[in-house]
Amino acid sequence: MEARLQEAKDSIRDVIDFPKEGIVFKDITTMLKDEKHLATLVETLYEQYKDKGITKVVGLESRGFILGTVLAYKLNAGFVPIRKPGKLPAATYSEKYTLEYGEDEIHIHQDALTEDDVVLLHDDLLATGGTAAASIKLLAKCGVNKAFVNFLVELDFLKGRDKLNTEFKVDSLFHF
Amino acid sequence: MEARLQEAKDSIRDVIDFPKEGIVFKDITTMLKDEKHLATLVETLYEQYKDKGITKVVGLESRGFILGTVLAYKLNAGFVPIRKPGKLPAATYSEKYTLEYGEDEIHIHQDALTEDDVVLLHDDLLATGGTAAASIKLLAKCGVNKAFVNFLVELDFLKGRDKLNTEFKVDSLFHF
Repeated sequence: MEARLQEAKDSIRDVIDFPKEGIVFKDITTMLKDEKHLATLVETLYEQYKDKGITKVVGLESRGFILGTVLAYKLNAGFVPIRKPGKLPAATYSEKYTLEYGEDEIHIHQDALTEDDVVLLHDDLLATGGTAAASIKLLAKCGVNKAFVNFLVELDFLKGRDKLNTEFKVDSLFHF
Repeated sequence: MEARLQEAKDSIRDVIDFPKEGIVFKDITTMLKDEKHLATLVETLYEQYKDKGITKVVGLESRGFILGTVLAYKLNAGFVPIRKPGKLPAATYSEKYTLEYGEDEIHIHQDALTEDDVVLLHDDLLATGGTAAASIKLLAKCGVNKAFVNFLVELDFLKGRDKLNTEFKVDSLFHF
């Protein structure tokens, strides 16, 4: 990995026992607050996706909004949010997914994407893959045929990637 | 207002009776999904703040993350999130504020800002001003002496601006 990207990775903070005992949380706020690291992230991801014809970047609430919009701007694409229930005001498609205890649901506006869009789906973290798999199903409901899936951080040992069940190319900038 | 900015403003969708009867919700997703409008917003705000010496953009969860990070990137600044309870993993400062029914609380990492930072505080909407006033108090707790406050949309008739009680300059791109 290039030196400045390694420096950015090294600035991610481990927080022990968050959100509960036994979990080591990867805190990206220490990376994002540094303007050099932020620029490195944006420019690296821009280089990776600039020739893919992307027309919309779809970001997942809420940490996927952080880099999602700056990637949209750089790629000369629009930005579309996927949000939790009760947040998007117009007609939505929704998809349920299971959590450790119970289930949750995500939504996208029905008029946000068309079958002609080439989508970059972005979130900060691929962990167990539940939200990401649901997001990919939402893209299908919108008629999207071509997409790329990107995570800032992937926790390889949780094998979330195996749950995604997609033909779209999936990449993560940092692996732990 | 410049023509392309007026076009962006006109693309904001009114959703009647959301989130409850009698409210007309200003839906910015119809503006953000259009790459021309997104570029117009970013470039207009960049021009407004480029000479202010801004070192950190602070964005409010979650719609303040959307333009917050792209402004940080453009301004060569870092990005710092203000979040709801239970989201930030390290030590935080917090501030309560009252809602129509009950109260809520927002947090910022204690090590996110220093007294040398020049901050651009950004959120998508200035409505009744409760969250914004609490955010300005959080900046004070972090020792920030110099800041600018920016909203994408201000609902003038709610007079939220009167609640902010700040010496920092407050600007909104669009007024309704």
